[in-house]
Order: sequence, then C-alpha cells, then structure tokens
Amino acid sequence: MTESGSAPGTLRPGGRTARTRAAVRDAVLTGLGEHGYPGLTVEYVAEHSGVHKTTLYRRWGGIEGLLADTLDLAGEDDWSPPDTGSLEGDLRALAREAADSFTDPGQAAAPTAIIAAAFQSRRAADALHAFYAERFSRCERVVHRAVERGEAPAGTDAGAVVRAVSAPLYFRLFITREPIDPALADQSATAVLAAVRAGAFASARAAGRPVMSG
Amino acid sequence: MTESGSAPGTLRPGGRTARTRAAVRDAVLTGLGEHGYPGLTVEYVAEHSGVHKTTLYRRWGGIEGLLADTLDLAGEDDWSPPDTGSLEGDLRALAREAADSFTDPGQAAAPTAIIAAAFQSRRAADALHAFYAERFSRCERVVHRAVERGEAPAGTDAGAVVRAVSAPLYFRLFITREPIDPALADQSATAVLAAVRAGAFASARAAGRPVMSG
Repeated sequence: MTESGSAPGTLRPGGRTARTRAAVRDAVLTGLGEHGYPGLTVEYVAEHSGVHKTTLYRRWGGIEGLLADTLDLAGEDDWSPPDTGSLEGDLRALAREAADSFTDPGQAAAPTAIIAAAFQSRRAADALHAFYAERFSRCERVVHRAVERGEAPAGTDAGAVVRAVSAPLYFRLFITREPIDPALADQSATAVLAAVRAGAFASARAAGRPVMSG
Repeated sequence: MTESGSAPGTLRPGGRTARTRAAVRDAVLTGLGEHGYPGLTVEYVAEHSGVHKTTLYRRWGGIEGLLADTLDLAGEDDWSPPDTGSLEGDLRALAREAADSFTDPGQAAAPTAIIAAAFQSRRAADALHAFYAERFSRCERVVHRAVERGEAPAGTDAGAVVRAVSAPLYFRLFITREPIDPALADQSATAVLAAVRAGAFASARAAGRPVMSG
C-alpha cells in the first residue's frame, strides 16, 4: 500500500527509524490508555509523537496499522519468563505478573484497549494473536525446564499449561467482569501445578481420556 | 428516568408485557448478531420487534438499557448444569457446552457482541457481570454434588472450579484469538478435575499455600 512497498516492520535498522517507531508506539499506547481504540486518531499520534501525519499515513496506513505495529514492537522486547528453579515458583510468578499488570490501572489501560480493539478490527485481532502466540511460546520454557528437572511428565502440553495459568485471570477481567487479586493468581498457579503433576496435560491424555480412573 | 419510574425488569407478569419483552430481546439478539453492538440502533430493534420506537425509549431508555434487559431476560431461563452422575462427566459436559456455543457462528454472534459491548459500555459490563455471576452460581451445584459424593474435598471453591473449566476456552476465543475445539474443552475439564482431586481448589489452600510438598 505504501509507495515504497515496505511494511513498517522491515524498517528496523536502529537509528532514526527505530527512534521514530518507538516514539510512534509510545504515542499509540498513551492514546489507547487515554481514549481507547474508538477514540484514537492519527492526529493524536502525530501530535504526541512529533511525526507528521502524512508520514504516519504513508508508513502505517492508518490507525489499524499503527496498532498492529505497536504490538509487533511490543513483541520484540527481551522479556523472558521467570526462572525461580521450580515449576511451582515459575507458574506462580507468571500468574502474579499477569495479575499485577492488570491491577495497576495505568499499566492496564493500553493492553485493555488493545483487547477491546480486537473485537472491532480484524487486523488488531491478528496482531494480538501474533503477540500472544510469541509471548506464550517464550513462557513454554518454564514447562520444558520442569520436564528436564523431572517435575512434569514428558509430553506435557507446555502451551496449554502456560495458557491455563493466565486464563482464569483474563476470564474474570474481560468476560465475567469480576475483580482479581494475588490470591486468585496463586490459586490458578496451584491448580495448574496439581494438574501438571497428575499428568492431566500430558499430550496422549489431553485428547480426552481420564487422568485417573479412580 | 421513565415517566412511570419503573425499571423494565419490574414489568414482568406474563401476558402482553412478557411477550413484548421477549420480542424486543429477540430483536436485540438478532441485531447484535448482524451488526454488533456499535451498529445496533433503537430503529433496528423497533423494526424487528414491532414495538414502537418511542415505547422502546420510554421503557428501556435506549440501546444500553435494551442490552441490559436482554441479558436480564437471558438470566431468567431455566438452564441448569449437567448432572451426569460424576464430577468428571459434569465438568466435561460444561466445557463441551461452552465450546459448542462458540463454535457455531450463528449461536456465537450475539454473546460475542455482548462481550465486546462490555468494553464500550459500563452498563453492558455490569449486566454481563450479573449474567455470569448468576450462571456460574447455578454451575456450582456440580461441585457441591461432587463434594457430597466424596469426589471432591470439602471446602472446594466451587466458583473457582467452574470458572477454571471455561476460562481457557474464552481466553483463546477472546484474548489470544486462537481456535478452540472439543479436545481443548476435554483437556480443560481433565486438568481442573485433577486439580480438584488433588485439593488445589480447597479453600484453605487456595489462599496460596502449595498443594503437595513433594
């Protein structure tokens, strides 16, 4: 769509382009926090990033492209999952981190707006999907290390485990609209840990056969 | 706000009022499925329910009130959770029911639109919260029966258990935007069952202490 034909993600070699991209991302996140997705405009991003509106349209196409690139950039950080030395510690730390990030309203505003945007924009939904796919693939390390340490059965479905830890938190925040707290994060980690130990996430069984026939 | 001062929910004694309310609800659900919350208008509801626009405004106040009453009415059905005779069967049936309802696009459209609406309207969020609170309180029977049968420890946090079964499905549908299928529903039920059996949802432990010290 752009005259150069290059997607924003390909303009990444440090320096001025990287700084511009980061400034634009910061403006998008601030705008999402302040106005939500329906209220975010290219004008706002231009004003808060110092990047000219025509440049934003040319390089990002518009609001959907700006949101997608913000998520792409968020996915390029060096975040790595906790490494406490035990599966229990790691799952608990993962759950606490998820809960904490949505308990602080300042921190929660932008991701909440992006989750909302995904209901209105297919492109936002795709970018959100890609972001979480990448993020949870990093989280799987926690389970792989546990298998190596003998804390989890071989064949444990790592992707399902790390999603199951966060799911009850997001479910209450965005579906049932109930409050969450650190105790709930701990409960989720504890439950998933018990299920892992019982072999409930081991692949052969995940297809639907009972864990224990007792 | 209305001249009579009565909320829609109080006009409920069968007959014409009940039929009108049901017709309005059907129109709201159809409209949500077709246009989503941002596209739903009082005009659409009037046209599809046969109820005059001024009546809709007078009795429901507008779109937010119509949506809230639709959820109130949905919560007045006689749905009850599965009773298969075992906790495993019941949790699996609950998970399958949740998965099935979102796998059929026709069935999924209206609830998806309501979940989306909750991001844009505080009143929709409150109504959604009330709907799920009531729905999950019915689901808790499944756990209470399991405790009576000796399949689950006394003190098992029934609300947390039934939410944990559905959470990974909704999480993938509306947050990570990943596909779900019956095998995933079974995996979720199997994992939660194992956690229940291990005592991971028993209240004293849910506060954060480890399930097993092995």
